[in-house]
Amino acid sequence: MINLNKRHLSLPKALTLGFLIIILIGTVLLTLPLSTQSGHSTSAMTALFTATSATCVTGLTLVNTALHWSLFGQLVILVLMEIGGLGFMTFTVILFFFMRRRLRLSTRLLAQESLNLENLSQLSLIRLIIVLAMIIQLTGTALLFADFYPRYGLVRGLWFSLFHAVSAFCNAGFDLFGNSLESFANDPYLLSVMAALIIAGSFGFLVWQDLLLYRKRHRLSLHTKLAMGTGGIITIISAIIYFFSENNLGQLSHQLSASNRFMNTIFMAITPRTAGLVTIPYSHLSIAGIAITMFLMFVGGTPGSTAGGVKTTTIGLLALQSIATLRGRKDTELNHRRFTQENVLRALTLIFVAITILAIAILILAATQPIPKTSGIEYVTFEAFAAFGTSGISLGLTPHLTLLGKVLIMALMFIGRVGIFTVMFSILNADHKQKGYRYPEESVLIG
Amino acid sequence: MINLNKRHLSLPKALTLGFLIIILIGTVLLTLPLSTQSGHSTSAMTALFTATSATCVTGLTLVNTALHWSLFGQLVILVLMEIGGLGFMTFTVILFFFMRRRLRLSTRLLAQESLNLENLSQLSLIRLIIVLAMIIQLTGTALLFADFYPRYGLVRGLWFSLFHAVSAFCNAGFDLFGNSLESFANDPYLLSVMAALIIAGSFGFLVWQDLLLYRKRHRLSLHTKLAMGTGGIITIISAIIYFFSENNLGQLSHQLSASNRFMNTIFMAITPRTAGLVTIPYSHLSIAGIAITMFLMFVGGTPGSTAGGVKTTTIGLLALQSIATLRGRKDTELNHRRFTQENVLRALTLIFVAITILAIAILILAATQPIPKTSGIEYVTFEAFAAFGTSGISLGLTPHLTLLGKVLIMALMFIGRVGIFTVMFSILNADHKQKGYRYPEESVLIG
Ligand SMILES: [K+]
Ligand SMILES: [K+]
Repeated sequence: MINLNKRHLSLPKALTLGFLIIILIGTVLLTLPLSTQSGHSTSAMTALFTATSATCVTGLTLVNTALHWSLFGQLVILVLMEIGGLGFMTFTVILFFFMRRRLRLSTRLLAQESLNLENLSQLSLIRLIIVLAMIIQLTGTALLFADFYPRYGLVRGLWFSLFHAVSAFCNAGFDLFGNSLESFANDPYLLSVMAALIIAGSFGFLVWQDLLLYRKRHRLSLHTKLAMGTGGIITIISAIIYFFSENNLGQLSHQLSASNRFMNTIFMAITPRTAGLVTIPYSHLSIAGIAITMFLMFVGGTPGSTAGGVKTTTIGLLALQSIATLRGRKDTELNHRRFTQENVLRALTLIFVAITILAIAILILAATQPIPKTSGIEYVTFEAFAAFGTSGISLGLTPHLTLLGKVLIMALMFIGRVGIFTVMFSILNADHKQKGYRYPEESVLIG
Repeated sequence: MINLNKRHLSLPKALTLGFLIIILIGTVLLTLPLSTQSGHSTSAMTALFTATSATCVTGLTLVNTALHWSLFGQLVILVLMEIGGLGFMTFTVILFFFMRRRLRLSTRLLAQESLNLENLSQLSLIRLIIVLAMIIQLTGTALLFADFYPRYGLVRGLWFSLFHAVSAFCNAGFDLFGNSLESFANDPYLLSVMAALIIAGSFGFLVWQDLLLYRKRHRLSLHTKLAMGTGGIITIISAIIYFFSENNLGQLSHQLSASNRFMNTIFMAITPRTAGLVTIPYSHLSIAGIAITMFLMFVGGTPGSTAGGVKTTTIGLLALQSIATLRGRKDTELNHRRFTQENVLRALTLIFVAITILAIAILILAATQPIPKTSGIEYVTFEAFAAFGTSGISLGLTPHLTLLGKVLIMALMFIGRVGIFTVMFSILNADHKQKGYRYPEESVLIG
């Protein structure tokens, strides 16, 4: 029993340590003079921040990726993004299978039970993920090349296509244009390819498995229904809000046709969850647009995907649970299925801890970072949400961060990517040894 | 069984309807020409907003209470505050006793079980609350009179003493000075009396009962320990933060001695939970000061008190629960007692619904209200927190609200005071009829 617990513990620790090691290797490589265009070596802090941002697929940067880094430096970033996106996904499969096995053997605490359906085995699922991810990224590269070849020629066009296909699929948010996708606001083809790559990356392995097995078993799991339903509803609602709040899309309104404005609005609803490639500078957004973007960055994608945030299933489950509680119902249900009590408790705790971490970070940032006279609290709030949600959109604070600010934003990116529960289990050295006794129950007044 | 459920339902409905009727009566009285100093009648919207703000003990105002309303109008506001503060408290006692009885009879769902201790009966507890509240408010009036008599003479001094003792004890936030307590920043005696009244009002009936029975039974309930512990810790931490972030206390720094600055800092940590009487204009606060104030307004006081917010016990319980979960523990404990699962679930749901309501309100306010060029999103966020937490501190938006904004802020004050669960139970017509069957369980991936 204790053995089993130790084995369970080693997985969150392995994940946390693995990420740290990859970030450190990336940092060392990025400090090399070889990694910069100027041939001067980069400061350790800037290299560490960049490696963290790439590995945690966030995209917040202290230096301009296009201007500062050499081809070698950009290649390091590409590899870090792929490890942070795809590597993380395959690791979560292992974690998922282990949890399920453990569930059968012992306690149900923290359990993420499977889907009461025939599933692929661990190895075939991992193989499937890697193959599918490669196919999607290569297809994306080819589709982007059709757009980039006329603009940049063969070699540069190929490199740009590969880099941005990976960046979009891994929801990483890095770009080689120097101003994200701002030059492509008038290019609906490119935006469509990018949006498709972003969405494919944010699905997560369970949804993929479900979709691939659909022909065989003719039904979707509760997980897939909840994830797709929540994601779809949120995207549609936020697109409508953006359409009204950012109707003129800032300074772009004069250059864009009505259909291109529509395309940009759709893209705005997709990219904060949590790709971070943008077609307009977000500091030009209305206050309402900034608010909805922060919400989208907080939600993020599906668990076990390349996206960050607290995840669609968490938000969807809690919305259903709140409605059930307010209607005086005991069970949280969807589509003739009941969610486990463990699911609900885990989701609620996740949200509470996430908001607590964000509140503390925002308070510290507000007290210590330079805020322009023309900006309000959203100047630091937005950056904290972007880091924690690994979305990487910025209102402009990141390059001006103090040392404390940089450390804080890096910590948020790390916790946001590796996961609150995983990081906390590692730090707090959680053990599942239950005491042999329980204290007597007592109740308090709530609300 | 169904009968019992119907009886239970009637209580939230009675509370919601009762509040609405009191607000409407107050509105009618405030529209009378008799109620204004000018002798002109007030617009229905302004009267409704003022009556809502007074009954919900919030303190946000469209017109200056000192300049606009006659003595009669101010008397109406006084009565509304007393009903909203003390009347609400006594009603929650009835609700509490009913819930406890119901708990013994049938299901434990939504239960707020009592303290496993001998308690006062319902009637003696209500009598105790009313007597104690009267004694505290009259003592407060006498103590304030010692300060106000030399300044304002006998009649005005007496009226001001009574009005502000009630306003402080009921955590209502209305004042007759025209600029809240800004003229008294240099008066530590007055600030001490006010702070004591505010704290006494925010204790809640269960804490009072506990303190009064302490001599007899020599222990405190879990509820009291959690409420006092959380409230104390939050006050101390926020006082320290204010001390650093508002070190110079805006423009007051030149006029205040070091000891008075210290007193003002302490007062700043007490008044947002959720009294709303202030000694400095909050638009002069630093961004960090604004952030911590929003947090304090969100937390509020103890359940069953005159204070608003999501309540100290909710925050304290969730902090303990999060630590327990992150350490891999199943039970949430404090002081050799275990909290009920119902408590934890109710607290988590309350927070999630509160944040959802606030997020939607903030988004609508951000999209529709006029925001000055020099302010950011905190300009609307702060007002939403102030209304929902019934704190009533303002950054200046309230007098400039559009019609939609006024309706929204009134709705937030109402939900904030009457309680999310109570309002929602009334609206959604919740019934506790459980279905005769349950759907099969299925799990999803979270986080
Ligand atoms: K990103
Ligand atoms: K108040």
